[in-house]
Amino acid sequence: MEIKQIVLDSRPKGMPDHKNFRFETVTLPELKEGDVQVKGLFYSVDPYMRGRMNDAKSYVPPYQVGEPIYGGVVAEVVASKGEQFKKGDKVLGNLPWATQAVVPAKWLTKIDDTIAPASYYLGILGMPGLTAYFGLMDIGKPKEGETVVISGAAGAVGVVVGQIAKIQGCRVVGIAGEDYKLKMLKEAFGFDETINYKTTSDIAAAIAKACPNMVDVYFDNVGGEISDAVIRNINFHARIPLCGQIALYNATEVPVGPRPQPTLLTRSVLMQGFIVSNYQSRFGEGIQQLAQWVKEGKLKYTETIREGFEQLPEALLGLFSGDNTGKMIVKA
Amino acid sequence: MEIKQIVLDSRPKGMPDHKNFRFETVTLPELKEGDVQVKGLFYSVDPYMRGRMNDAKSYVPPYQVGEPIYGGVVAEVVASKGEQFKKGDKVLGNLPWATQAVVPAKWLTKIDDTIAPASYYLGILGMPGLTAYFGLMDIGKPKEGETVVISGAAGAVGVVVGQIAKIQGCRVVGIAGEDYKLKMLKEAFGFDETINYKTTSDIAAAIAKACPNMVDVYFDNVGGEISDAVIRNINFHARIPLCGQIALYNATEVPVGPRPQPTLLTRSVLMQGFIVSNYQSRFGEGIQQLAQWVKEGKLKYTETIREGFEQLPEALLGLFSGDNTGKMIVKA
Repeated sequence: MEIKQIVLDSRPKGMPDHKNFRFETVTLPELKEGDVQVKGLFYSVDPYMRGRMNDAKSYVPPYQVGEPIYGGVVAEVVASKGEQFKKGDKVLGNLPWATQAVVPAKWLTKIDDTIAPASYYLGILGMPGLTAYFGLMDIGKPKEGETVVISGAAGAVGVVVGQIAKIQGCRVVGIAGEDYKLKMLKEAFGFDETINYKTTSDIAAAIAKACPNMVDVYFDNVGGEISDAVIRNINFHARIPLCGQIALYNATEVPVGPRPQPTLLTRSVLMQGFIVSNYQSRFGEGIQQLAQWVKEGKLKYTETIREGFEQLPEALLGLFSGDNTGKMIVKA
Repeated sequence: MEIKQIVLDSRPKGMPDHKNFRFETVTLPELKEGDVQVKGLFYSVDPYMRGRMNDAKSYVPPYQVGEPIYGGVVAEVVASKGEQFKKGDKVLGNLPWATQAVVPAKWLTKIDDTIAPASYYLGILGMPGLTAYFGLMDIGKPKEGETVVISGAAGAVGVVVGQIAKIQGCRVVGIAGEDYKLKMLKEAFGFDETINYKTTSDIAAAIAKACPNMVDVYFDNVGGEISDAVIRNINFHARIPLCGQIALYNATEVPVGPRPQPTLLTRSVLMQGFIVSNYQSRFGEGIQQLAQWVKEGKLKYTETIREGFEQLPEALLGLFSGDNTGKMIVKA
């Protein structure tokens, strides 16, 4: 059986464009014991995919030239020789950009599209949602009345963290770099206060003003000087989930700054790095809770859906020109 | 009733000496409702007391000129108007250097000297022992076969941390600054490897060599460049109890160094500052366990006991000329 797939044709220098991608028609391999044949329904396009187009070491290995692009995909099982799955099941996996694929059963997780639309498993019920949920609830452990500060607050993870913190009864302060994002955080997502780190001369003073009772939870997506400013306002027994250090990703030397340890020590603060896959065994619990909040209208979520498998490269490129509001998805 | 007490007569410049202390004879105040009259049995002398002789802000407030020196004291109840205590009870508290004192009942904790000698409550069953126990067990959570690295390993806390880590079945590596201390760590306390940070040119390389499976728990008493070197060797999912940052205590500017956050993030590492009083509600559990290990011979403990209340200043001064092996105590 012939299927279409999209491979990396060449590595971009600077902004990627259409000529870095190539459409191929290939024959699907035979279904072997333990394999599952799936048909793509919804494809996730995410900023991190740009990094994988480079030939550089990172969290995830680079895409290979001539090989398919991989990403989060919600798919339907067409045929299965993996005993956990049967025809018609909806599944989630890190899968090739292909109309259909044959993959090992262990790559797939079954999803329940009766509790939420299947595409939600790429966003609010997927990696960004689960990252927010476990990072905040398991490490941040917010208590009613506490103050939660989020850097990178307008990102896919940040907006969910802020909303969950509001559900927990916290005062929520978001830090981002564009006024329209600050407006969105307050008006669409219910943040109490926002700080534009690009236009604020003294970020530490702005945080002190926005957090009169200091910072009990700092959900850190960015690192660097923004984090230094938050840590200067950190409360006794505070918790700092380290989710990203985007300010430092492009550093060519070891980044140097004020040592946080003396403050963490004297104020009994916890700092914990994590990636969402640490919580794999508890994804079910996270998805149930997030879906419940979405259903109750407590957790807002927006997606931009483009129609058609062939729109994938365009959708990915569109992330960098701001085409999307909320999560960008391609529907096959 | 007249008692003797020792007050701070003047603040030392540099090394303290006898003329900074003054013996006084004063009349004990009347016993009021909620108060307890106690007689000192064992007095703790500790390096941190030197800091309190200065007029400088620190973790604990400075001693006041003309007022008694305070420290850890094991005492016996002489008379009580506090309902939790009765005559003859052995108690622990932060008490004045006085032969007897009248203090609020809430300053005192009852101790059980049937499970260990009463003086042990100033060391292995007191603050240093409990700091080691809770920092390692509650934050470090060592598992059998893991590697535990301890900086400031020859200190009152460090030697207990190392021994508890051995009891848990870990490989234990201690960092200290004198060869005789390294020898003691291996021969008396069963450490597997030691590193002399003063005579080792590349500490990170020495740690890599001593820890072929990387570092799962780093019990940090010192901070600074030693900690930088350990963190370069930190394992995925490692835990870093922050117990002290002695390398930075005398810093006059904000200490700057390599930012640990990127490493903590990419390796899912936990860093947690703490002070032992965070665990006050669980001291009973800690004391029971430590006493059990001492009784079984699994936890070695040495003390140097000087006899006579009037020896207190001499004993404190002796800490700085290395008069003691293990914990220094004065017996009334």
